[in-house]
Amino acid sequence: RRLNVYIELSEQMHLPFATDVELKEHAERCHAFDHENDFFKIDLIICMGGDGTLLHVSSIFQKSCPPVLSFSMGSLGFLTPFDFKYHEKILNEVIAGNVAVLLRTRLKCSIVKGLKRQSSSSASLLSTSSDDTTNEETNKNSNKDDKISHLALNEVVIDRGPNSYLSNLDLYINDRFITKVQGDGLIVSTPSGSTAYAMAAGSSMVHPNVPAMVICPICPHSLSFRPIVVPAGIELKVKVSEDTRLTAWLSVDGRNRHELHQQDSVHITTSVYPVPSICRFDQLGDWFESLADILHWNLRKAQGGLGGSESPERDVQLNEDQTNDSSSTETTQSST
Amino acid sequence: RRLNVYIELSEQMHLPFATDVELKEHAERCHAFDHENDFFKIDLIICMGGDGTLLHVSSIFQKSCPPVLSFSMGSLGFLTPFDFKYHEKILNEVIAGNVAVLLRTRLKCSIVKGLKRQSSSSASLLSTSSDDTTNEETNKNSNKDDKISHLALNEVVIDRGPNSYLSNLDLYINDRFITKVQGDGLIVSTPSGSTAYAMAAGSSMVHPNVPAMVICPICPHSLSFRPIVVPAGIELKVKVSEDTRLTAWLSVDGRNRHELHQQDSVHITTSVYPVPSICRFDQLGDWFESLADILHWNLRKAQGGLGGSESPERDVQLNEDQTNDSSSTETTQSST
Amino acid sequence: RRLNVYIELSEQMHLPFATDVELKEHAERCHAFDHENDFFKIDLIICMGGDGTLLHVSSIFQKSCPPVLSFSMGSLGFLTPFDFKYHEKILNEVIAGNVAVLLRTRLKCSIVKGLKRQSSSSASLLSTSSDDTTNEETNKNSNKDDKISHLALNEVVIDRGPNSYLSNLDLYINDRFITKVQGDGLIVSTPSGSTAYAMAAGSSMVHPNVPAMVICPICPHSLSFRPIVVPAGIELKVKVSEDTRLTAWLSVDGRNRHELHQQDSVHITTSVYPVPSICRFDQLGDWFESLADILHWNLRKAQGGLGGSESPERDVQLNEDQTNDSSSTETTQSST
Amino acid sequence: RRLNVYIELSEQMHLPFATDVELKEHAERCHAFDHENDFFKIDLIICMGGDGTLLHVSSIFQKSCPPVLSFSMGSLGFLTPFDFKYHEKILNEVIAGNVAVLLRTRLKCSIVKGLKRQSSSSASLLSTSSDDTTNEETNKNSNKDDKISHLALNEVVIDRGPNSYLSNLDLYINDRFITKVQGDGLIVSTPSGSTAYAMAAGSSMVHPNVPAMVICPICPHSLSFRPIVVPAGIELKVKVSEDTRLTAWLSVDGRNRHELHQQDSVHITTSVYPVPSICRFDQLGDWFESLADILHWNLRKAQGGLGGSESPERDVQLNEDQTNDSSSTETTQSST
Repeated sequence: RRLNVYIELSEQMHLPFATDVELKEHAERCHAFDHENDFFKIDLIICMGGDGTLLHVSSIFQKSCPPVLSFSMGSLGFLTPFDFKYHEKILNEVIAGNVAVLLRTRLKCSIVKGLKRQSSSSASLLSTSSDDTTNEETNKNSNKDDKISHLALNEVVIDRGPNSYLSNLDLYINDRFITKVQGDGLIVSTPSGSTAYAMAAGSSMVHPNVPAMVICPICPHSLSFRPIVVPAGIELKVKVSEDTRLTAWLSVDGRNRHELHQQDSVHITTSVYPVPSICRFDQLGDWFESLADILHWNLRKAQGGLGGSESPERDVQLNEDQTNDSSSTETTQSST
Repeated sequence: RRLNVYIELSEQMHLPFATDVELKEHAERCHAFDHENDFFKIDLIICMGGDGTLLHVSSIFQKSCPPVLSFSMGSLGFLTPFDFKYHEKILNEVIAGNVAVLLRTRLKCSIVKGLKRQSSSSASLLSTSSDDTTNEETNKNSNKDDKISHLALNEVVIDRGPNSYLSNLDLYINDRFITKVQGDGLIVSTPSGSTAYAMAAGSSMVHPNVPAMVICPICPHSLSFRPIVVPAGIELKVKVSEDTRLTAWLSVDGRNRHELHQQDSVHITTSVYPVPSICRFDQLGDWFESLADILHWNLRKAQGGLGGSESPERDVQLNEDQTNDSSSTETTQSST
Repeated sequence: RRLNVYIELSEQMHLPFATDVELKEHAERCHAFDHENDFFKIDLIICMGGDGTLLHVSSIFQKSCPPVLSFSMGSLGFLTPFDFKYHEKILNEVIAGNVAVLLRTRLKCSIVKGLKRQSSSSASLLSTSSDDTTNEETNKNSNKDDKISHLALNEVVIDRGPNSYLSNLDLYINDRFITKVQGDGLIVSTPSGSTAYAMAAGSSMVHPNVPAMVICPICPHSLSFRPIVVPAGIELKVKVSEDTRLTAWLSVDGRNRHELHQQDSVHITTSVYPVPSICRFDQLGDWFESLADILHWNLRKAQGGLGGSESPERDVQLNEDQTNDSSSTETTQSST
Repeated sequence: RRLNVYIELSEQMHLPFATDVELKEHAERCHAFDHENDFFKIDLIICMGGDGTLLHVSSIFQKSCPPVLSFSMGSLGFLTPFDFKYHEKILNEVIAGNVAVLLRTRLKCSIVKGLKRQSSSSASLLSTSSDDTTNEETNKNSNKDDKISHLALNEVVIDRGPNSYLSNLDLYINDRFITKVQGDGLIVSTPSGSTAYAMAAGSSMVHPNVPAMVICPICPHSLSFRPIVVPAGIELKVKVSEDTRLTAWLSVDGRNRHELHQQDSVHITTSVYPVPSICRFDQLGDWFESLADILHWNLRKAQGGLGGSESPERDVQLNEDQTNDSSSTETTQSST
């Protein structure tokens, strides 16, 4: 195949199996991925690893994102449906175009600092995100209007961080005050994220094709604060309450932790840049299979052997040739 | 106002305040509502009563439904946002067109009898729905293909009815088997219904603008059967399991109970006929106000007086003229 | 073994495998169980079947109950820990006394009719429970004070039965009004029952050694009506509300359904007659094993093969002699 | 009254209203509370403040604890039933002995370090708890067997602290492995604590008279990990899993945060030193009133004015003499 391959360098470093034999042979077509210039050359992302790897890919592509083919390298994941054992066959089918694609909604999330501390705090804030090279440019621009912006594939979390006490947040929708959040924090989740942290916090699971956001409190100090599902496209604002001395902590897909002070607010809305994910079967089938395999959704005692829930495809291909066990972890690849 | 008023007769009968003074004066323009011929003459439905009254309206208009203006006559309801005290002012604004309309999705639900009992059972089934005059015609047609069809504004419920034992249902989506349901039953709910029975059964609440259905088990005999939210437009099938001797019971918006036997199935999908509901403020504001007022969503101890959650409009108009306290219960009204 | 065996006749009738070869050989020592006279001759109950069979045993022994040895005949159950395959070995150990016994609390539940209908309704009520021969005597006595009393091993349920509308119940504790119950109904459960219907309705699971009752609403029309756990020994009263025209339905361990009318009330408290259940390992071990095996409590994806959760004992004995596969279903047995 | 009053000095310092006029007049009988010598002179603790203040009192009395009379100074609390307005009348009744006392169970919690790091880590650990003067002595003693012990009135929490990733804990009961905990953490709660953090994490509420512990996961990454209620007296062990690099954090009643490393474990069991709390009405009445007032348990829309849930006592005494509005915050008091 005459393809140019771009490799995400940072990944190569801290992963043991970074030296990939197969790719080495075609080293002349392997290029280190250049975050400045190469974004628009990528036609297909091949992601190898758990859900966390795909979240990392999403964090790299802060604007338009090419289609992603995700191989799980062992652990099951909602975002990584393919088994690496069959990567050759799968790649061929993908390049031939015989696949369904699910557009996974992302959330755009911006921090707006409280008025008083604008000038002093912006500098220190940038340093906390200094490990986050991809956002540097965004940060520089946003300095003017004091905004830091991220895209979330799973969820935006505002929680109490290392504080011992409850967070105290105000939730606004389309600039209308909705409710106070007292508890460990608040999750604003995409449908993709509704099977991740929001699931753990008690949300109903929402299929990724539903154009919606989930608003889900974390351990709320209230019996009646049940999660809600609201339409995609509305504007959420989460503000650190004026009547608290405590700070809160923002994180986006489990990364990019920022400390939020009194009156700081986080603006969240649906992004126009989804992540196109290549489906294994189809949009509905993949999801229900993952619900069963990963979350054991409605697993009942009469169901007997769990092995029966395996997909037929997997079992059929179990005896196939598995020699090409290349193991580079995360590569971005483009055709010339 | 030169309007022709059609009155739903069945309602007039069993309601105490059926004789309406105001309407009597204009008796020449009041017509009994004729289910056969008058559907297409209606431009606006004025619904007076609780959520149950609007569910009844929805059951009358089994196809296209005109906009509905819903007055609560005392009790609060998600579907009945307006206070009858201000009906004159509100009616003027509605007729002037200064209102937002929310299209409330409905579910279309059809019964398909198990093969063996088709010929014998169809007759008896019709008799159980004989009180349901509006569906007579539908039933006659559907006799051929043994289908009985209803529209649900809130939810379709398949439960164990008066049986002591768990229902045993099979759930299919787009003809793919998804899971078994063991428990008191299953709710398939619209977003509107997610604040009704599905809420009681543990679902997250879904805003009516989200194009989705909620699949929510009732007291499932499983720790892991959490409610899910799936896209509008998919085809659900709920089948009475082959391995049960027990019957199940279907009900649509709390009405139209049918007994389902082994291998009978219920097909459910999003209807193309929503119910256009006139909003009090706007689509989001009405919903969050109802969450707070009716469900006490996230009511916390620090919130102090509940009175503060009252809408300003209500308080402002509290001293206004309230003389025209007419009390007909349910009328359908059309301009000539 | 020189034992007299009493067999529950009603069970023998409607069960296919009632003719038991092994027992037939010792027919001279087999006696039909006489509900009037034999209660005090029983030293050990051997229960064969699912949880339902043990619930039936509990319903027979409305006062003092001898120790119960419960064999599951296939399906797993919280109340039936033993595998019938090893019944010989197990029986020998039980008769030798090398076993732990768990005292399973029961609830005593009495109906008190509303004042107005006392005289007229008591007769009709008795007829509804006429299939319940064991309670006949109790009923006769209680006629004077208009009480019907049952013991529940799992739970007492008051629900809407076949009614379409919400039940409306008032809950009192020690004659103090506690709260209104609007929803499908209310469960008052023993710890043993907390893994049955109360689990399905959302209760936390309570170990049978905890001297407590669980009060658990069924699909409550309230976001904040969470189940509570209260001390054993308190007096609960559940009353059909005065402001409802609807009846409610009582059932005890899924049996003995009685219709309750306005102002009827059900008094529930801890009984002084527990059911002594013979443990497989010990009181804690059995329970956690059942949580894992039956409810798949906290089954996680990383856990891999479910087979690992099998008890070692089962695996060890899997190749043992299994010839004596006698299959009588429910016998009560006493040494002379 | 001839009483000697001991005042907790640390409290006096950081609270604005530490100088109490009424107490000043009797300064000769006011003594600073000496943690070394005065424990056994105390007959009655008067606690003024929110639930946090009583948790502090509990942390001071690490062994036997005298009866506590708790005044809320404004905010409602489960642990602080009395209104300070009526403190004179209440104090008289308490000293006269006309009160019910609830023995609130506490949990005893000890840290056992993993074998490898014992010698090196014990020193650093002590420094992290250096602000915790009351435990100094305990720590010194426990150095020998490397145990640090605390009493918890509400709960023991082991969570991920400031880590971004899920904690990975192993739960043992009576030295038997029960389950893995993957999620934000685990709460082991007393019945008193079941209305605090465990409630927020989804537990059923347990009345303080039930001799039990609640085991409640925090945002578990599993659909089926429901909270459970186990008998008081059993031995729990929570161990940082061997297959995690992450540390976990222990906290006791929201205080005493300790970092736990791989293989460290926390042993938890019921303490023999409860906190005797003076009841306002009685053990059941206080609890249900608090459920309604503080948690709005089963607050329904039909309930109308919230004011109706106020206790009659409060309303009756509302016009009484309120002049002695002294405001010292936390005092310990003993008769000579």
